[in-house]
Amino acid sequence: MNLLDKLNFPEDLKKLNEEDYKVLSSEIRKFLIDSVSKTGGHLASNLGVVELTLSLFKAFSFDKDKIVWDVGHQSYIYKILTGRKEGFKKLRKYDGISGFPKRNESKYDYFDTGHSSTSISAALGIARARDLKKEKYNVISVIGDGALTGGMAIEALNDVGFRKTKLIIILNDNQMSISTNVGGLSRYLNKLRIAPVYNKLKTDIHASLDNSNLGKNIAGKISKVKDSIKQLIVPSMFFENMGVKYIGPIDGHDIDAMTEVFIKAKEINEPVIIHILTQKGKGYALAEESPSKYHAVGAFNLESGESNASPKNSYSKAFGKALVNLGAQDEKIVAITAAMPEGTGLKCFSQKFRDRFFDVGIAEEHAVTLAAGMASNGLKPVFAVYSTFLQRAFDQVLHDVCIQNLPVVFAIDRAGIVGEDGETHQGINDLSYLSMIPNIHIVVPKCLEEVDVLLKWAINKNAPVAIRYPKGGNIIDTLSPIKEVVEGQWEIVNRGSKVCIIATGRMVQHAMLAKEFLYEKGLNPTVINATFVKPIDKKLLENIKKEGYNILTIEDNILKGGLGSAVKDYLSEIDYKGTIRSLGYDDEFIPQGNVEILYKTYKLDYENISKIVMKLYD
Amino acid sequence: MNLLDKLNFPEDLKKLNEEDYKVLSSEIRKFLIDSVSKTGGHLASNLGVVELTLSLFKAFSFDKDKIVWDVGHQSYIYKILTGRKEGFKKLRKYDGISGFPKRNESKYDYFDTGHSSTSISAALGIARARDLKKEKYNVISVIGDGALTGGMAIEALNDVGFRKTKLIIILNDNQMSISTNVGGLSRYLNKLRIAPVYNKLKTDIHASLDNSNLGKNIAGKISKVKDSIKQLIVPSMFFENMGVKYIGPIDGHDIDAMTEVFIKAKEINEPVIIHILTQKGKGYALAEESPSKYHAVGAFNLESGESNASPKNSYSKAFGKALVNLGAQDEKIVAITAAMPEGTGLKCFSQKFRDRFFDVGIAEEHAVTLAAGMASNGLKPVFAVYSTFLQRAFDQVLHDVCIQNLPVVFAIDRAGIVGEDGETHQGINDLSYLSMIPNIHIVVPKCLEEVDVLLKWAINKNAPVAIRYPKGGNIIDTLSPIKEVVEGQWEIVNRGSKVCIIATGRMVQHAMLAKEFLYEKGLNPTVINATFVKPIDKKLLENIKKEGYNILTIEDNILKGGLGSAVKDYLSEIDYKGTIRSLGYDDEFIPQGNVEILYKTYKLDYENISKIVMKLYD
Repeated sequence: MNLLDKLNFPEDLKKLNEEDYKVLSSEIRKFLIDSVSKTGGHLASNLGVVELTLSLFKAFSFDKDKIVWDVGHQSYIYKILTGRKEGFKKLRKYDGISGFPKRNESKYDYFDTGHSSTSISAALGIARARDLKKEKYNVISVIGDGALTGGMAIEALNDVGFRKTKLIIILNDNQMSISTNVGGLSRYLNKLRIAPVYNKLKTDIHASLDNSNLGKNIAGKISKVKDSIKQLIVPSMFFENMGVKYIGPIDGHDIDAMTEVFIKAKEINEPVIIHILTQKGKGYALAEESPSKYHAVGAFNLESGESNASPKNSYSKAFGKALVNLGAQDEKIVAITAAMPEGTGLKCFSQKFRDRFFDVGIAEEHAVTLAAGMASNGLKPVFAVYSTFLQRAFDQVLHDVCIQNLPVVFAIDRAGIVGEDGETHQGINDLSYLSMIPNIHIVVPKCLEEVDVLLKWAINKNAPVAIRYPKGGNIIDTLSPIKEVVEGQWEIVNRGSKVCIIATGRMVQHAMLAKEFLYEKGLNPTVINATFVKPIDKKLLENIKKEGYNILTIEDNILKGGLGSAVKDYLSEIDYKGTIRSLGYDDEFIPQGNVEILYKTYKLDYENISKIVMKLYD
Repeated sequence: MNLLDKLNFPEDLKKLNEEDYKVLSSEIRKFLIDSVSKTGGHLASNLGVVELTLSLFKAFSFDKDKIVWDVGHQSYIYKILTGRKEGFKKLRKYDGISGFPKRNESKYDYFDTGHSSTSISAALGIARARDLKKEKYNVISVIGDGALTGGMAIEALNDVGFRKTKLIIILNDNQMSISTNVGGLSRYLNKLRIAPVYNKLKTDIHASLDNSNLGKNIAGKISKVKDSIKQLIVPSMFFENMGVKYIGPIDGHDIDAMTEVFIKAKEINEPVIIHILTQKGKGYALAEESPSKYHAVGAFNLESGESNASPKNSYSKAFGKALVNLGAQDEKIVAITAAMPEGTGLKCFSQKFRDRFFDVGIAEEHAVTLAAGMASNGLKPVFAVYSTFLQRAFDQVLHDVCIQNLPVVFAIDRAGIVGEDGETHQGINDLSYLSMIPNIHIVVPKCLEEVDVLLKWAINKNAPVAIRYPKGGNIIDTLSPIKEVVEGQWEIVNRGSKVCIIATGRMVQHAMLAKEFLYEKGLNPTVINATFVKPIDKKLLENIKKEGYNILTIEDNILKGGLGSAVKDYLSEIDYKGTIRSLGYDDEFIPQGNVEILYKTYKLDYENISKIVMKLYD
């Protein structure tokens, strides 16, 4: 029986000696690789922080000290060490443990994360509450160098440094966001990296610290450690200028070195940033080589590293290919990503058109206004972004792009349910937060073969256009793409009678499955593909009213402010008196789980669609 | 006839000599004070940049060089010098010239601004388009030190410094946002300020530059100037670390000094930031003393500085007072502002409860997640913010506050039409972008006397709550505030028959005016105060359906995703077959203008309400 199985976490951790910690880190690594190869999950980032996490447990006590993990996908080891190892069998599954910190999952999770760059703000809030309540404990934020390129992290640093709230910020620097990190700040961190790295202190102080009761008379000893460390660190004017003390760089795979520095940091009565150098994917050769590939994985074969799921065609790929084709014909087309060149399908474009490709770091706000600036000066920018991350730039879409009616294309990937990443990553809000903005157009391909014709239309529309498409690929492969795009015109995919299904995007495929099911029962609903969620096809709706159809709308989006809502608003305006039902997500956050399970649970599957349509025939 | 009236701008500017420029700056200042005292507008910021703007015209040619003014309320002099002086008679009026740069107002306005911190991103986009199109001109961003605390400005700097795009960033440092600036970065800029200020170079090079044809052989001369300047400037590691060259600080009221540096900057083939020190309110003693008071003013008396509009009670004041009262009773209540302690009514709270008040700078994103952190650790944070600025933190409201269901109160001021500031500042989106988020509650006082009871409820709800209220005060003073708040319960303000007006916020006052008007005509509509926009009062709606009323909804918000839309969604669900009409803003941006005029134009005035209600009686 190994240590990992034998110990009670986190209580037993304090009993371990140096050697045990080393054994434990290798056991944890083995467990992670093995477990994630079966369930899928975030691998590379967690392999990078094994020693960092263990050091945190050596230095802090998370029964009172509070920690916030930025983004949070690197919290697996923390979960293991706070008693959730068994949960990894159902990691990221419906009803299983989350791949992110969740307050409702464990008392050790102090703040939920998911999106990047929030941890300093949250930790600062927790620390200020601590001070006002006159409580005593440490508050720690662990943030990656990629997340530091997000503006709100710097907003938070600016505030931290001003009021001098005691706070420990651990900068987990692996030179990566999901892909290789970019930006002036990243280049600056690289300069710091080449300074002499602080390893274990080769002094008596070190030994005495290890053998002493850490709780007693620590201050005197620490001050000596402090002096020694001072000589080893390179001053970082960037952070010091913001009013935050800087310590580093520290070897992020040296438990003793990190533990010493963390213990020292506890005694510093003001904000401090500790710069830790880690290697993403550490300990699994395949992941060390391709950390980006092993950032988030499905189940895979341990030896070969090959994914168990067969590689299907995806909307992302269809988008990437279409953009390369269009880009070859029109030099004005440029592509922008916020640190997601691979996930968004832009890799090929970035290689073919190097000078027309811009990775701005995890900085969606800047990305959108940069695109607006480009569009104002004659380019045709396409910002490829995940639905949930574009939320960050809601104001920029409205204020910088749409008020000026600038021709920026938003290529919105992972729109709709994304599955295993859960609440924070479901891309089910974009139809609503975009529909409400004047001047924008929203187009949605019903199948991946339709991406190119819609993208071409979007890029040449000379106005703001969003094109949204889901994670993955087609559910059925039998639909023919539309040939021609006419603004605001919907497509009648099946002409039936009495009941009309108005679906958008991949939901048209569900609608067609339902139609086939109903056909067997002698019913033949009309199925409409709402190619445009904005503007809607008012003429067609007037006809539907005239012919007295009942209506079901279906969208992989929240109900509030989405397609169904727009349809109902217009039908109410023209005094339609038939019956309308709407499918979508009804004012609740949608948890993690397999996409098929979620569609079923939230009644967007063809069986439930069929049921509702049958009722509309009554 | 003075210079300002005599010259054709901008053509004639190049003909002026040094002395003329001095005369011109004093004439411009006089014109500004005089003109703004009549129309109202942004005064102090413009008085601060008279010489800066003139220097820009000396150094650049805005027929080809492109400039982006951050926020843009300091662009008045630029407007004057690009031929729009006559327009100042109708500054910020309906159909008059805007108080912000507008591409559709002048070919010299290259990018619309309004919200803070966008200019570096936009200018970078313009510059990159220039480079891809192989064009040659300068692109300039003018950004205040306050705006630099906004995260997206730093995101942009990070990108600028990485790719080294040629760009001139002018940091207009007056130690202010609207109020005194805060943050570690601001403290750092102060350090730079105390370095020897670069005034006019006392060298031959200076004279030779002035007398030479600037277009010819400039490079050699410039390189000498460069050396001289180098000795005068203090290196800024902050900006240099980001990869951006720093020059400064420069006296922002010395035209010759600035012009020289700007000319030099044109020759630098990479991004450069020029640090200019200006005084907000410069040249008008009252504004110099109280720049915050004279940031944005209504018409005022020139000598006394007193506002012509009688100081009315306002929702902001009612909020500020209510919060102080509640804060005195509950130590857990803390207040947060993003650089708006005065506008939001928090001044008194900030003085009474210094340690429970947090001004985080122009950093709405950080503000919201800071509040979430505080709430997660037992405090009751209230973030007071203008409706339009909270758009910046849409994702943080959703992701950091609402997913975790944390008790943060959003006190949303300037909700609804704000008037003279126009498209970028109309607070007409919040009901929509907040309604769509699960877990949040939205309450709206129908009169300012209702602010305290709703605020108290909000703070003690132990869940996310938004309370929204408009600029200004009551329209009618005859309504009694509700005594008790019951979640999701609406108030019947008038019991009538057949037609029901459902209004929210101050629109209840318009509805009551309409009711009185209609009463004279023998009609008596029911008037309902939708205290809650979320959750809506489903029970009451069911009764309305049962009794067969027709319905008119009214909100000072866009129609999409607002109150009317929520009402229609629910009524459609319960198969209501009556007639519904909705008033609000219909999918267009609302321009500047007096609030009364805008209400009339967009049919939210009592006369139009009455008309529609009459039709609903037919």
